[in-house]
Amino acid sequence: MASVSPVVQLQLPTPSPFTHSVASTGWSTRPSIHLSNLFLRSLALLFSITSVLSLGAPSTQHGETPFSGYPELRYCFIVTILASLYSAFQLFKGICDISHRGLLISDMTSDYISFVLDQLVGYLLISSSSVTVLGLEKIELGTSLWKAAIVTLCMSFAAFVAIVACTLLSGYKLCKRIIW
Amino acid sequence: MASVSPVVQLQLPTPSPFTHSVASTGWSTRPSIHLSNLFLRSLALLFSITSVLSLGAPSTQHGETPFSGYPELRYCFIVTILASLYSAFQLFKGICDISHRGLLISDMTSDYISFVLDQLVGYLLISSSSVTVLGLEKIELGTSLWKAAIVTLCMSFAAFVAIVACTLLSGYKLCKRIIW
Repeated sequence: MASVSPVVQLQLPTPSPFTHSVASTGWSTRPSIHLSNLFLRSLALLFSITSVLSLGAPSTQHGETPFSGYPELRYCFIVTILASLYSAFQLFKGICDISHRGLLISDMTSDYISFVLDQLVGYLLISSSSVTVLGLEKIELGTSLWKAAIVTLCMSFAAFVAIVACTLLSGYKLCKRIIW
Repeated sequence: MASVSPVVQLQLPTPSPFTHSVASTGWSTRPSIHLSNLFLRSLALLFSITSVLSLGAPSTQHGETPFSGYPELRYCFIVTILASLYSAFQLFKGICDISHRGLLISDMTSDYISFVLDQLVGYLLISSSSVTVLGLEKIELGTSLWKAAIVTLCMSFAAFVAIVACTLLSGYKLCKRIIW
């Protein structure tokens, strides 16, 4: 008498292409989202620091701020300093996350804070860029301050674009964390 | 000789608490996200139309645009008109979605377009609000134009806040659609 063993078929759910990046914590399994984040943060830092230096460097050479009579440029200067500090902090945090996770705050809190601050810095940057366009009208054409303001405007807009991309990435990360 | 039929065990995935809001199409199962969307769109429409009227109404009375000498106010006026049209369209689309789904375009395309346009309108509104603050400096204190500009500024900022909330909601909807 032949004994037939029962055949057990397991119908497993199709693995999501995004699952591995949440479930595992290793570096090798999720390079893309981390590398994209670091790359965008580096770009934002580069652009915002260039924007700060293009306005700030002439002032340190001559010992006075050439844009003291232009509140629009001062606003842009302050906002790009804030954006530089924020981008530098996020870059530092990103590197810390890769080396040993959860250095400063929990992942959940960090995702929320990153998303809110990304949004805020993005809105500040587009606001300061718009205001700088108006400030340009007051400055005499072809002067060194005018050139510096043009560079600042372009760089702060580029930093804005980079921060918007960071916002999309951090929003996506936050959404995944809420849903799962 | 007894024949043993093979036992088939199906291991189904645990249903997600969010699945019903994506899978089903009924009104009763997902009132919150639709109602929130409609409420926020109505607010954005109300604020942006108030902003447009506060600048535009005096001009229609006297037959001339009182803010023709102020490019900042003209920029704000154009942006709030765009925001009004966009909010009206989204409100119309939201009501169509409730009554009979998928009137104009597919849900996937609609979610992408809504998210991108929400972001764009939000950035335009904060940009125009910032520029209007500068425009206020040029206008004489206490005049009717000054009061109209103040109302426009407040209302366009309020519309910006409503649009930001819409952006969060449409980003969440888009994220859910991408992940599932």
